[in-house]
Amino acid sequence: MADPPHVSESAAESRPGVIDRAFSVLGAFDERHRALPLTTIARRAGLPVNTALRIIRSLIDVGALERRDDGLYVVGLRLFEIATLAPRGHGLRRTAMPFLESLHDVTKQHVLLTVREDNEAVLVERLSARDAGQVSYRIGGRLPLDRTGAGMVLLAYAPNDIQEAIIARASEPTGGSGPRGAAPGHELRRHLAAIRRDGGGPSNQHSFDGMESFAAPVWGFGQEIVAAVSVVVPVVNRSLSSLESAVRITARAISAALSVRSR
Amino acid sequence: MADPPHVSESAAESRPGVIDRAFSVLGAFDERHRALPLTTIARRAGLPVNTALRIIRSLIDVGALERRDDGLYVVGLRLFEIATLAPRGHGLRRTAMPFLESLHDVTKQHVLLTVREDNEAVLVERLSARDAGQVSYRIGGRLPLDRTGAGMVLLAYAPNDIQEAIIARASEPTGGSGPRGAAPGHELRRHLAAIRRDGGGPSNQHSFDGMESFAAPVWGFGQEIVAAVSVVVPVVNRSLSSLESAVRITARAISAALSVRSR
Repeated sequence: MADPPHVSESAAESRPGVIDRAFSVLGAFDERHRALPLTTIARRAGLPVNTALRIIRSLIDVGALERRDDGLYVVGLRLFEIATLAPRGHGLRRTAMPFLESLHDVTKQHVLLTVREDNEAVLVERLSARDAGQVSYRIGGRLPLDRTGAGMVLLAYAPNDIQEAIIARASEPTGGSGPRGAAPGHELRRHLAAIRRDGGGPSNQHSFDGMESFAAPVWGFGQEIVAAVSVVVPVVNRSLSSLESAVRITARAISAALSVRSR
Repeated sequence: MADPPHVSESAAESRPGVIDRAFSVLGAFDERHRALPLTTIARRAGLPVNTALRIIRSLIDVGALERRDDGLYVVGLRLFEIATLAPRGHGLRRTAMPFLESLHDVTKQHVLLTVREDNEAVLVERLSARDAGQVSYRIGGRLPLDRTGAGMVLLAYAPNDIQEAIIARASEPTGGSGPRGAAPGHELRRHLAAIRRDGGGPSNQHSFDGMESFAAPVWGFGQEIVAAVSVVVPVVNRSLSSLESAVRITARAISAALSVRSR
């Protein structure tokens, strides 16, 4: 359908809708929804099927989506290419990787690199150890800030409003954000202060899945926190304290490498 | 500016422009342009500054771009999150990683995993060896199909029209697509036939930068090529032939793992 001639470009583009909707379509995909039919995309994006189809076609044209032979849609390689330029994703990963590999080689444990996005942590890199227990987090996936070592470090240095919102949530009589081991508000506050005092720390005592972790902050050029490095080990190993120094040194080495790269 | 009331949603959305332009803005970023001011984005995207600014704001709202403290724009973490779901990017990487790591451990050489996108190869994963010479390709970056071992394998099994276009380009009197070691058309055709016959092969003899490589194809469930695995070694090493079996076995193991995952 052609545009009515009286619609100016600037009028159409000032509409917030199209880009928003395009990202609603892209947001329909997640770990358990990697290949979707049109109707599911429309439903998950909250869009009429016809609208979803038009947007999907535009996204296919630019390579952000791909249509498989079986008719299902998947996230496209073009998005992967652009996303590798995200400084807080692959950019950070590239600088950090040699140091993470050293930590992984020395400890033989799971090594994670995470950044904060709003009130959650996003896993940027994970080096896994085969015999070191199960860690279910995947690269690009999200972790709670208040129940992982990495998340706690990111939270400890997060803006005040984010800290207070999560502390308030943890203080609710329902027991906080979830059934699995969220610390009460006052305990959380005390724990965050300890992390700031020590420049890093273990996951809080309510660890779940039989794993515990130690995390340390990675600092950017302007002394703002950019990421957390952590090792995750089975609780039964009782080896966490012996790994603390290695994690701290790794985090400092990455911080130094970032400050060299950024100028 | 509000929309004129007579513009229906479907009319506005049938315009191909907005999503196209959004990806022109995202496409303004590349390896050497990771943090850009507004005016540079507008120029590289071929858009008026006002239009670029409106699109940038929408992209910031959805997390696809971020604005740094110094006012420059960078690719956002949200794009990284969505892109990790691309089957031909991180999905493939995740399945292939244990096998790539084994190949890397055993050979101590650079190991690459690449996929074809139109008439180029995209690097999905690279495991680097510290003392194994310089490889400048980066994850998410592009490689020529006709001048790398991985590219040649991807080209050998590419649709006919893509093969013929690249062979025709290589046969041009200008010497092909670039100054650095492109093979003439007839030589390229012979080389591609040899790769299909042998199920993999070395980079063509016009290797540049003092490096050579051996690559083998990774097959998908439907016996279509999905990727190439390669090792890259300095020419002076003269060790390439001893690595061929290892590369072939790795490619087969990944193919088998992919066919298990896909059902």
